[in-house]
Amino acid sequence: MTETRLRVYDDTRALFHLPEGVIYLDGNSLGALPLGVAEKVDRVIRREWGDELIRAWNTAGWYVQPRNVGNRIARLIGAEADTVMMGDTLSLKAYQALAAALDINPERKVVLSDTGNFPTDLYMAEGLIATLGRGHELRLLAPEAVEAALSDEIAVLYLTEVDYRTGRRHDMAKLTAKAHALDIVTVWDLAHSAGALPVDLAGVGADFAAGCTYKYLNGGPGAPAFLYVAPRHANRARAALSGWMGHAKPFAFDLGYVPAGGVERMRVGTPPVLAMAALEASLDIWDRVELSEVRARSLNLGDLLIAEVERRCPQLRLVTPRAHEMRGSQVSFAFAGGYAAMQALIARGVIGDFRAPDIMRFGLTPLYIGEDEVMKAAEIIEEVIVGEVWRRPEYQVVNAVT
Amino acid sequence: MTETRLRVYDDTRALFHLPEGVIYLDGNSLGALPLGVAEKVDRVIRREWGDELIRAWNTAGWYVQPRNVGNRIARLIGAEADTVMMGDTLSLKAYQALAAALDINPERKVVLSDTGNFPTDLYMAEGLIATLGRGHELRLLAPEAVEAALSDEIAVLYLTEVDYRTGRRHDMAKLTAKAHALDIVTVWDLAHSAGALPVDLAGVGADFAAGCTYKYLNGGPGAPAFLYVAPRHANRARAALSGWMGHAKPFAFDLGYVPAGGVERMRVGTPPVLAMAALEASLDIWDRVELSEVRARSLNLGDLLIAEVERRCPQLRLVTPRAHEMRGSQVSFAFAGGYAAMQALIARGVIGDFRAPDIMRFGLTPLYIGEDEVMKAAEIIEEVIVGEVWRRPEYQVVNAVT
Repeated sequence: MTETRLRVYDDTRALFHLPEGVIYLDGNSLGALPLGVAEKVDRVIRREWGDELIRAWNTAGWYVQPRNVGNRIARLIGAEADTVMMGDTLSLKAYQALAAALDINPERKVVLSDTGNFPTDLYMAEGLIATLGRGHELRLLAPEAVEAALSDEIAVLYLTEVDYRTGRRHDMAKLTAKAHALDIVTVWDLAHSAGALPVDLAGVGADFAAGCTYKYLNGGPGAPAFLYVAPRHANRARAALSGWMGHAKPFAFDLGYVPAGGVERMRVGTPPVLAMAALEASLDIWDRVELSEVRARSLNLGDLLIAEVERRCPQLRLVTPRAHEMRGSQVSFAFAGGYAAMQALIARGVIGDFRAPDIMRFGLTPLYIGEDEVMKAAEIIEEVIVGEVWRRPEYQVVNAVT
Repeated sequence: MTETRLRVYDDTRALFHLPEGVIYLDGNSLGALPLGVAEKVDRVIRREWGDELIRAWNTAGWYVQPRNVGNRIARLIGAEADTVMMGDTLSLKAYQALAAALDINPERKVVLSDTGNFPTDLYMAEGLIATLGRGHELRLLAPEAVEAALSDEIAVLYLTEVDYRTGRRHDMAKLTAKAHALDIVTVWDLAHSAGALPVDLAGVGADFAAGCTYKYLNGGPGAPAFLYVAPRHANRARAALSGWMGHAKPFAFDLGYVPAGGVERMRVGTPPVLAMAALEASLDIWDRVELSEVRARSLNLGDLLIAEVERRCPQLRLVTPRAHEMRGSQVSFAFAGGYAAMQALIARGVIGDFRAPDIMRFGLTPLYIGEDEVMKAAEIIEEVIVGEVWRRPEYQVVNAVT
């Protein structure tokens, strides 16, 4: 942490822009806007791009930005220094991680995942398996069945720590240890973990991990992803997406590819400088908060939302585990009229989201959400559900892309 | 074109920010800043991300932005409507194009390219070939030898139209026609073509093309890339990088991948909204200029720079073809002291760049560079070369990343 530590919510709430009349419980999908972002991006556009032009790759540090930002993310996910590289999207970083992991276990053909994994991870794996053309199988089980299914047939255990629909959390330490005992390589998706709860990649001995920065980390829409490679793999891992920025000497413009040392090889093309600048402004806040404090507040907010909604709305069925250690930073309820109910909530300023077939999701982001907002949201949920507002015709029309 | 047409340079020069005392001849590496960018990005950050939050995917059109921007690029590269998709980086879009192209020709094992292709294209091909593991060969020839080497052994012809070092231009129409006569699929990299000269993808019958938008198109550092898929391939092409945004129903969150129709399937992950907004502001200019006029001015500027430098500096050897039809929008000279000379030029405000081993590149971007700038640059080049300023010790230190 740099500078003075910030108290979660008490000091951080004022550092975010939140529109009047909105209770924002969708920071697990797109984090709210940190106040410093617009100024930072404006400065990069005018002073760096505008005035420095091509020189800014050196003078403004654009070239080393993905590595430097990666090191700031590293603190938040318990990663060693110089093990995290920024760039591209989570889909692509998951692809790189899975490709490298499969290369470590060439004799085994099963990628084990679960039905709680985010679909793009599964789709990217399908694409990779087709490109490999070596008879790999993507095996999907219920989340609860994963641990018992670990065996020496499995090449890679490929999971998202926190389920995007239910908020159920895997035991990363236990699964990683059991996987390693069977020589299974692990790839963890931290989309709903980074910035939501303490992650300890080095401590659990994770092999590869990837995540996005536009959810809890508030990096902005389409913010760059991160990729973690454990130090023991970093100089041997194959970068299947072997772009020039991951070359040992990118500016030698050699005709043949030679990977850079360490996680640097996982860079692909020209980094997204403007998007990364927005993320940097958000990290100016993250650098100054303790994740243990974020986590304690998140669990408290979750307990409160569960208690209030269950007390007020027996129609909603909790699908998030009650046990703290099995929960991420969201609370989800199943409700047959969930889509319509969420539209009615959004119309009343309570922004959560809906995931098919019947899940209403409420994300808890303690940097800018506190007990008052949760209590107020519970009241409005009651009005919509118990008052049957959700049955009104205007909320039945399915037109949202998200 | 929308609104009133803009005269190239006469009307467009005032629409760019260029720092005092700089003659910017590196728009072929990073285009200059269009004045509208900072305001546009600021609006997207504050009004869309800040106020609309997650709703902006619908209300601000973020979800359809990659397709809409692709259609604006389409006009500049002679592509049919709905054949161009934005996202990721050129390295990744070249990878997707090559993977799809190889799938069309599964019995053939040779990817033919040349030593003038940009290295990342070659590196990505190496990575893809390794992942495929089916004995493909990446065959590299001198640019002049490519045409004669086309044969029914070749699966894919994989070229950059304009050589990043020399500015030499391939005859895309002729090579594509000859390739097709031999059932070879073509992948064209338009990095140094898009916005530099008229491209006629539909007219030449190109199969796949990819390009970046941070050079002549002035989209900003790390601006998103584009991918073109010919309509005849679009519903059959395999998206090897099969992310959720390319799924037929991304928000159904199905466990299995089903590609979207058309070029939409080439989307991968969450699009870079902020970077795309910067590009949109630049396209507000491009929408209103004619590429034929850009091209005519570029060739004129090139002729002028060649004549002036050759007259003043016999030490420099022109490596760009003199013939207009064989030239892109840059002029390059070989000079043994090129690195030092370029440092000396930059110190005097003439910003070009250097490419190993001995190439001094000068990009010509008629939207904001005119004859006066070229004449002034030639004078300063003479001062540095003939006056032997480049020999000074301060210009010998190699420290630039670009």
